[in-house]
Amino acid sequence: MTSPIPYDAVEFPASGQELVILDETELPLKEIFLHLTSAEEVYDAIKRLKVRGAPAIGVAAASGLAMCMNRLLTENPEEFEKEFFRVKKLLYSSRPTAVNLMWALDRMEKCYEGLKGGTDLNAVRKGLDAEARNIKDEDIRMCEAIAGHGLTLLKPGCGILTHCNAGHLAVSRYGTALGPIYLAQQMGYAPKVYADETRPLLQGARLTAFELMKAGIDTTLICDNMASLVMRQGRIDAVMVGCDRVAANGDVANKIGTSGLAILAHHYGIPFYVLGPSSTIDENCPTGADIIIEERPAFEVTDMHYCEPRAPKGVKVFNPAFDITPAELVTALVTEKGVFKNSYFTRATRVKYENT
Amino acid sequence: MTSPIPYDAVEFPASGQELVILDETELPLKEIFLHLTSAEEVYDAIKRLKVRGAPAIGVAAASGLAMCMNRLLTENPEEFEKEFFRVKKLLYSSRPTAVNLMWALDRMEKCYEGLKGGTDLNAVRKGLDAEARNIKDEDIRMCEAIAGHGLTLLKPGCGILTHCNAGHLAVSRYGTALGPIYLAQQMGYAPKVYADETRPLLQGARLTAFELMKAGIDTTLICDNMASLVMRQGRIDAVMVGCDRVAANGDVANKIGTSGLAILAHHYGIPFYVLGPSSTIDENCPTGADIIIEERPAFEVTDMHYCEPRAPKGVKVFNPAFDITPAELVTALVTEKGVFKNSYFTRATRVKYENT
Repeated sequence: MTSPIPYDAVEFPASGQELVILDETELPLKEIFLHLTSAEEVYDAIKRLKVRGAPAIGVAAASGLAMCMNRLLTENPEEFEKEFFRVKKLLYSSRPTAVNLMWALDRMEKCYEGLKGGTDLNAVRKGLDAEARNIKDEDIRMCEAIAGHGLTLLKPGCGILTHCNAGHLAVSRYGTALGPIYLAQQMGYAPKVYADETRPLLQGARLTAFELMKAGIDTTLICDNMASLVMRQGRIDAVMVGCDRVAANGDVANKIGTSGLAILAHHYGIPFYVLGPSSTIDENCPTGADIIIEERPAFEVTDMHYCEPRAPKGVKVFNPAFDITPAELVTALVTEKGVFKNSYFTRATRVKYENT
Repeated sequence: MTSPIPYDAVEFPASGQELVILDETELPLKEIFLHLTSAEEVYDAIKRLKVRGAPAIGVAAASGLAMCMNRLLTENPEEFEKEFFRVKKLLYSSRPTAVNLMWALDRMEKCYEGLKGGTDLNAVRKGLDAEARNIKDEDIRMCEAIAGHGLTLLKPGCGILTHCNAGHLAVSRYGTALGPIYLAQQMGYAPKVYADETRPLLQGARLTAFELMKAGIDTTLICDNMASLVMRQGRIDAVMVGCDRVAANGDVANKIGTSGLAILAHHYGIPFYVLGPSSTIDENCPTGADIIIEERPAFEVTDMHYCEPRAPKGVKVFNPAFDITPAELVTALVTEKGVFKNSYFTRATRVKYENT
């Protein structure tokens, strides 16, 4: 039973001398692998979104830092330390709002602080290299756990609707929302997936459809406004989406369009599952109302994903990047710790996701 | 109190020597008026969708036929009749599935049959010219009646969400779903309109946003999947959409995405209004389940409205052109005859739209 996923978005070969990443800006029409061998190349790849998705960025930054230290042939600890912090600072600045990036680089620094002081810089290199691989391995194990728990919610031949991209291109092997689908495919369930194209940036058309097809999964692309019809026609047994942030009361912030899907699923009696690492639950954020919704530039809507404009010049545009799905519409939250069924209706004042 | 609409999609100037149409294939970036003076030019304009929307096509065909006869300088009745049927047949073939086109041309033929036989061909020309103008005038009066009834559902400053294009570009002055909005603007209500872009063919972005802005109406373009958020944020007081067909039980076939909007509106407690001429109600069609949903080519979804593909090569696509909104989700149906409130919940077995 081999994984249907052919490669990870970020590979750190055993040599430790390069990073191999899939250039996601060229997807879905070209599949180009970049071999990165310097801090500047890694910086550029992150900054220009060639690698994207919070966990994948963290893995790329940590592996990139380890790779740079592997390639630095000095035996001078001061020179080594100077370069370590130069690379760390450079990568830190590549996506200033990416929390995972900072977390991974800070973890690498903590590792370095624990290793330095000895005379053998090769031992430091080895330690950093191992830590970078740990970060990725933990990510994969977390995704595998989410996939395994999510699999218990699926049946052979089932139809699944997903939105945006929460697959292995954004995370590590398996991804989050797509994890159970890959595992189902591996188990011979032959799942049928409907992928929302996800306007305005088309992550569903460009990334989700690409990675699912690549894994041999029966995938159908639809426009976002077709979800109601495919549900009505009985094609969908479950909706599975990722999450950007889960508030303490269970409200879910995710890609724009998610809350609409939840309402449709509720209307048609279809379970609506949100999948993500438990670290996505923000206990300091009481409810979805406390989450500020980012608004993005109008051209993303008017210009049809970097094509010529298809809307009148000067038209007013509202372009929110995500929306809030109230907890009561979430059938269950799936994390690496298990399936947490929503018992909102039995506990009126506060949502509790309870392990089943 | 002048209409905020600057021109009709199809104008038949008093001279009767030409048709002036707005070339809708150039919208929204260019506003080009075509002056048509031959049957072949009218045929081409209809065939190539330069004029579109069932009522507008009917008006263009009838006016085009009258215009051709006005321009034919013969005094020979046989020659006149030969040309009449040549033009009629040619225009008949321009959009073979457009019922309104055939209806309008058949009505012109009936008119001709009543007029012919006399010696004065100029009287025949005058009669045909008048009949073509009648067809358009009746269409305008029907739209005005829908607009007037729909206006009673709106309040000053209200927010309205609409989908696809059911405005004056598709019909005649006022349009159907947009009729009450134009009238509200004329009355100083200052309505705020949210226009769904309406994937895949973007009628909302290209046509609705264009015609509303042209009329000075406060218009905001959104992607289809943003409807849930704008409703949740309290921006929408009513949803107004057109209809392709209404079944005898009140189910509504309209542009893909309509049923999803109806479910969202129901969830948020926002009234959902369907507007159209009473001729759209098909008493021979028992329910929405009896309506076959047209599926259209994949490239419309993958190629982002005639841009380069944005989806993987060979991806499977489901591209339904419309969907069915169950009658129980329609707050009221507005026709030229009045506002028919849905009393579904009081009469369990069969929907009745009752005049309020």
